[in-house]
Amino acid sequence: MKYATIPSAQTVAHYCKTYGIKDIVISPGSRNAPLTITFTEDNYFNCFSVVDERCAAFFALGMAQQQQKLVAVLCTSGSALLNYYPAISEAFYSDIPLVVISADRPPYKIDIGDGQTIRQDHVFDRHIGYSANLKLDVSHATETIRKQGKGLLEANSTIAEQQRKIELYNDKELAHAFQLAIEQMSPVHINVPFEEPLYNTTTTPNQQPVLSYQKPVIDDVEDLTSFAATWNKAQRKLVLVGVEYPNAVAQEYLDFLANDASVIVLTETTSNLHHPNFFTSIDSLIAPIEKSANSDELFKKLQPEVILTFGGLIVSKKIKSFLRKYKATAHWHIDAKKAYDTFFSITHHFKTSENTFFKAFIPLLTPIESDYYAYWSTVKIKYEEKRNQYLKQIPFSDMLAFSTVAKTIPKNYQLHLANSSTVRYAQLFSIDPSITVFCNRGTSGIDGSTSTAVGASIYNKEPTLLITGDISFLYDSNGLWNKKIRPDFRIIVFNNDGGGIFRILPGQEDTANFETFFETTHTVDIAKLCSSFDVIHEKVDTEEILEKALINFYKSSKKPKLLEIKTPRLINDKILLSYFDFIS
Amino acid sequence: MKYATIPSAQTVAHYCKTYGIKDIVISPGSRNAPLTITFTEDNYFNCFSVVDERCAAFFALGMAQQQQKLVAVLCTSGSALLNYYPAISEAFYSDIPLVVISADRPPYKIDIGDGQTIRQDHVFDRHIGYSANLKLDVSHATETIRKQGKGLLEANSTIAEQQRKIELYNDKELAHAFQLAIEQMSPVHINVPFEEPLYNTTTTPNQQPVLSYQKPVIDDVEDLTSFAATWNKAQRKLVLVGVEYPNAVAQEYLDFLANDASVIVLTETTSNLHHPNFFTSIDSLIAPIEKSANSDELFKKLQPEVILTFGGLIVSKKIKSFLRKYKATAHWHIDAKKAYDTFFSITHHFKTSENTFFKAFIPLLTPIESDYYAYWSTVKIKYEEKRNQYLKQIPFSDMLAFSTVAKTIPKNYQLHLANSSTVRYAQLFSIDPSITVFCNRGTSGIDGSTSTAVGASIYNKEPTLLITGDISFLYDSNGLWNKKIRPDFRIIVFNNDGGGIFRILPGQEDTANFETFFETTHTVDIAKLCSSFDVIHEKVDTEEILEKALINFYKSSKKPKLLEIKTPRLINDKILLSYFDFIS
Repeated sequence: MKYATIPSAQTVAHYCKTYGIKDIVISPGSRNAPLTITFTEDNYFNCFSVVDERCAAFFALGMAQQQQKLVAVLCTSGSALLNYYPAISEAFYSDIPLVVISADRPPYKIDIGDGQTIRQDHVFDRHIGYSANLKLDVSHATETIRKQGKGLLEANSTIAEQQRKIELYNDKELAHAFQLAIEQMSPVHINVPFEEPLYNTTTTPNQQPVLSYQKPVIDDVEDLTSFAATWNKAQRKLVLVGVEYPNAVAQEYLDFLANDASVIVLTETTSNLHHPNFFTSIDSLIAPIEKSANSDELFKKLQPEVILTFGGLIVSKKIKSFLRKYKATAHWHIDAKKAYDTFFSITHHFKTSENTFFKAFIPLLTPIESDYYAYWSTVKIKYEEKRNQYLKQIPFSDMLAFSTVAKTIPKNYQLHLANSSTVRYAQLFSIDPSITVFCNRGTSGIDGSTSTAVGASIYNKEPTLLITGDISFLYDSNGLWNKKIRPDFRIIVFNNDGGGIFRILPGQEDTANFETFFETTHTVDIAKLCSSFDVIHEKVDTEEILEKALINFYKSSKKPKLLEIKTPRLINDKILLSYFDFIS
Repeated sequence: MKYATIPSAQTVAHYCKTYGIKDIVISPGSRNAPLTITFTEDNYFNCFSVVDERCAAFFALGMAQQQQKLVAVLCTSGSALLNYYPAISEAFYSDIPLVVISADRPPYKIDIGDGQTIRQDHVFDRHIGYSANLKLDVSHATETIRKQGKGLLEANSTIAEQQRKIELYNDKELAHAFQLAIEQMSPVHINVPFEEPLYNTTTTPNQQPVLSYQKPVIDDVEDLTSFAATWNKAQRKLVLVGVEYPNAVAQEYLDFLANDASVIVLTETTSNLHHPNFFTSIDSLIAPIEKSANSDELFKKLQPEVILTFGGLIVSKKIKSFLRKYKATAHWHIDAKKAYDTFFSITHHFKTSENTFFKAFIPLLTPIESDYYAYWSTVKIKYEEKRNQYLKQIPFSDMLAFSTVAKTIPKNYQLHLANSSTVRYAQLFSIDPSITVFCNRGTSGIDGSTSTAVGASIYNKEPTLLITGDISFLYDSNGLWNKKIRPDFRIIVFNNDGGGIFRILPGQEDTANFETFFETTHTVDIAKLCSSFDVIHEKVDTEEILEKALINFYKSSKKPKLLEIKTPRLINDKILLSYFDFIS
C-alpha cells in the first residue's frame, strides 16, 4: 500500500478510519494530492469522485443522512472550498455529520499573491460544529519552510521536537473535531496545510497515535412526574412532528398517542411516522379555519394547552403562524441536541431521544375526558372527502399530477422531495407508509436536491425517486455529473416553466417583471440536458399520458430515468388556491 | 412608479443610485421581494435575472470588472446567499466592487426553526471589505414585532423615535459600505432584514437622507529621489506585470521601460500591456534555464537587483519560484491599495496608481550601461524561433490547437480565459495587442469562468470569446442559463476529456486512481448540453477541420456559438513537456 509521505495527510486518514468514516467524496486538485493518494490507495475507504464541489458536498450529505454516520468531502485549496458552504449550512441545521476536509497552502503563502489561495481557516465559523486548523508539518519540506516561512521555525529547538509538538496539536484538534461530529451529528471543518512536494509516497506508514475515543453520553431523561401531571390535566394536547428519520419512534408509543382522546398528532410527509389517526395534511386542516367566518372561535377550539414537538424543521407555514398567535401554556421539545423556539413559547427542552422520553413518560399518563381528537377527526374526514371530490373535477395541473404520482410510487421506495413547491404539494397527499421521505429542510434551499438524492441512493437497499421542480432541477443539474448514479435512480420533474411557488404567494401580480424576476420563466430543454448526462427522458403533458408513463417508469432499466411532467404555468396556482376554498 | 412600503428597501435602492449602481443581478425569492420590486419598478436600474446564485454573482463580477464600477447582486434569505461566496472571494482578491445585498428574516426568526434561515450577518467576514448588517424597521409590521420580537422594541420611547434611530444607524452602515466599495474597489455585503408583509407597495417614496459623499483621496506619490538613485545604479532591473486592465499604464512609460538596456519587462497574457521588446512567455524563458546544466549560473545572470511589480496576481509558477530563490535586493510594488509579498522579499509599496508613479519616477531616471536586455533578448529570439519550429512538427493537440486559435482571434475581441490549463497555454503564444484579456486570477478558481465572461460581455462594444477547458465549462454550465447572452458570444472548449492540467504536474502516474480522482475523465456530451441552452455547437478533432471551422466561427449569428476542440487526452501533456525540452 502507498501513503503520502506528508505526516498530517496520513494522520487525517488515520482519524477518519478510527472514527468509522468509510466514504470520501473527492473533488480533483493538486494541493489535496497527499490526502487523495492516501485515501484512494487504501481499500478500506470507498472513494467517490465529484468535480463540482457544491454537488460533492450535497452528495456526501445524502450519504451521511442515510447512514446517519460521518462522511467526508475533500477538496483542494482556494474557492473550491467555498462551494461546499450551501451543503455545510444544510448539514448544520439538519444535524448531519459532514466532515469537510480542505487542503491548504502553508500559512506563509496566504495573502501573498499565490494562486488558489484564500483564508480557509475559520471560514465556515457561522455554521460549523468545529473548525480544526491543523498546523504545517515542519519535518517535511523543511528547507522551503526554513527559507520562506518567517517565524514558523523556532531557533532553540530541533525540527524533530517541533514536529512532535505540531503532531500533538494536530492530534488534539482532530480528536476534538471528530468527537464533536459523532456526538453532536454536526458538520466539522478540518483544514490541512501542505507544502510541496505533494505527490511523494512511501510504503511505510507513520506510527499513528492511539486515540482514547470517548463514547457519547448515555441517553437518559430527567424526572417527568411534574410534566406528566400537567399533561394529565390538559384536555387539548397537540403533538407536532417535524423532519424525522424512519423508525425514529417506536410504533407502540405512536399508537398510544394516536388513541388518546385528548391528543391530536400532526405529521408532515417528512415526519416518516404513520398512524391512521394522525393528521397528515396540516394545511388542509388550517386553511378552512383561516377562511371561516368564525375563525377565531375555531382556532381557540384547536388551540392546545400543551404542545409536544420532536423532529427537525416544520414545513407548514400555516401551523407556525397559528401556534405563534394561539399560544399554548406549555411547549415541550424532545431532542438530544437542541430545541428551537419555533412558536415563541417554548417552556421545556427534554434533552434525550424520543424513545427514551416516551418509555419514561407514557407509564405516567392517565386518560382524561376530551372531545379534542373526536371533533377534529370529523373535520379531517370531511376535508379528505372534499379533496377526493376536488381532484375528480380539476384539469391537468401540478396538483392533479402530484396526486397521481403520490399514489403510484412503488412500495418501499425512498422518496426525496425538492424545495419548495414540491415538498408543499407533498403535504396534501397520503403516501404509502412503506415509503421513506427526505427533504433538505435544514435551510430549505433549492441548491442541492438532486445531488443529495443521488448521494442518499448509493447504499439504499431500495430504489430512490426524486421529485423536483424545474427550477430546483436546473439549479443542481450538475448533480447528474456523477458516474455512480444507479440505473434504478428515478427523477420526476414538475416543469411548470419557472418557480411556481411564487404564483401561490399573496400579493403578486402577473406582470412582465413578475415573470422575469419572481417566477423566472425559462426555455431550457430538459430532454437535451438529460441526454447530455445519459439519463433516459420522457415527457408527458396530460393526465392520461402521465398514468401510462408511470406504469413503465419504475420498471428496471440500464440507465437512470427522468419523467418530465409539463403542467400549465398559468393555472397551477389557481387550482391550488381554489382547493383550499373548496374544502372550506 | 411603485416602491416597496418597507423603508429600508427604499433606502438601499436610494444608496445604490447615489453611488452610481445601475446594474442589479437578481435571483428569485420571496424575502427579497421588497428590494426586487423597488429595483425592477425603477427604470433607472438595469435588472438582470439569474437563478443560480453562484452564476449570478460571477455574472455581476464580470459586469463590474468591465465597467470598473459597482454592480449589485440581490438574493433571498438562506443558503442562496452562500452560493455567492466563490465570486465574493474572487472579487476580494481581484479588487472588484461587487455589492452583495441579501434579504434576511428579522433577527428573532434566526435559529428558531424557520425555513430558509441561516446566520447571514458577518458570514463573509474572511473575504469582504465590509459587512453592513442593517436593523429591522420597526415602523413596519409593528404588531408582529411587538408580539414576537423579544426585546426589539424599547418600552420608553415611541415607535417613531425608535424608527428614526434605526434609520440613522442604517444610513451610517450603508454609507460606510458603499464608500468603502468605491474607494477600495472591494466587495461589500449588505444584509437587510425584512418582516412580512413583503409585497406591499406605495407610489409615494420615503424621504431619503442627503448623503455627504466623500471623494476618494487624491492619487499622489511620495518623494522618489532615493528610489531613483537605487534604480539608476542597478544594471539588472526586472519589471514584472500581473493582471492589469487594458490601458492601465500610458504607452509612453511602457516605451521608456522597453527601451532601457538595463531593464527587462516580463508580461503575461493577462497583463494587457504590449511592446515588441517585452517578454511575453515567461515560462519559455525560465524552463530552458531550469533544464540547463549551468542553471545556477544562468539564473544568477537573470537575477535582478531591483524588481518592480504592478498589476494583480502572476500566473507563472516558474517566475515565482525563481524570484523566491534568487532574491532581488529591492522589490517595489505599485498599487493604490495593496502589495503582496509574493517573492518573500518586498521592500517598498508605492501606494499610488501606475501612471502617477511613472510620471514622477521616469524624469528622475538616467541610463546605465548594461547588457541585461540585450543578452536575454537574444535568448528570447531563440526560443520564439524554436517554438515556431516545434509547432510545425507536433500532431494535433491542446498546444497546436491553442496556437491556431490564438492567431485567429479577430482584432478587438475581448478574450476571457478559464483556469487552469487554458490560461497557462495562453502564456505560450502571442495574441494581437488589440485583444483585451481577462481571467479570474484572484482565486484562480474554475467555478465561474463562463458566468464571468457572459457578464463581462454585456456592455462590451466588441464581441467576447471565452476559451475554457471541458472541466471548467461543465462546472459552470449554468452560466448559459441566462436570457441575456449575446448572439455574438463565442466559446471555445478544449475538450481533453478531463483535467488536463493534472497530467502536466510532476509525480503523477497513469493509473485508474489518477484518471478518476485527478484527471476526472467524464462522458458528458457537450453538444447536447449546448443544445439544451440553445447554443450552436460544432465539434472538431483535427487541425484541418479546426482551421476551417474557425473561418465561420466568428461570423455573425442569431445565437451564441460554441466550438468544441476534441484533443487527444493521452498525448497533450507529453507535447507540452517536450516543448520545454525542445526550446532548451
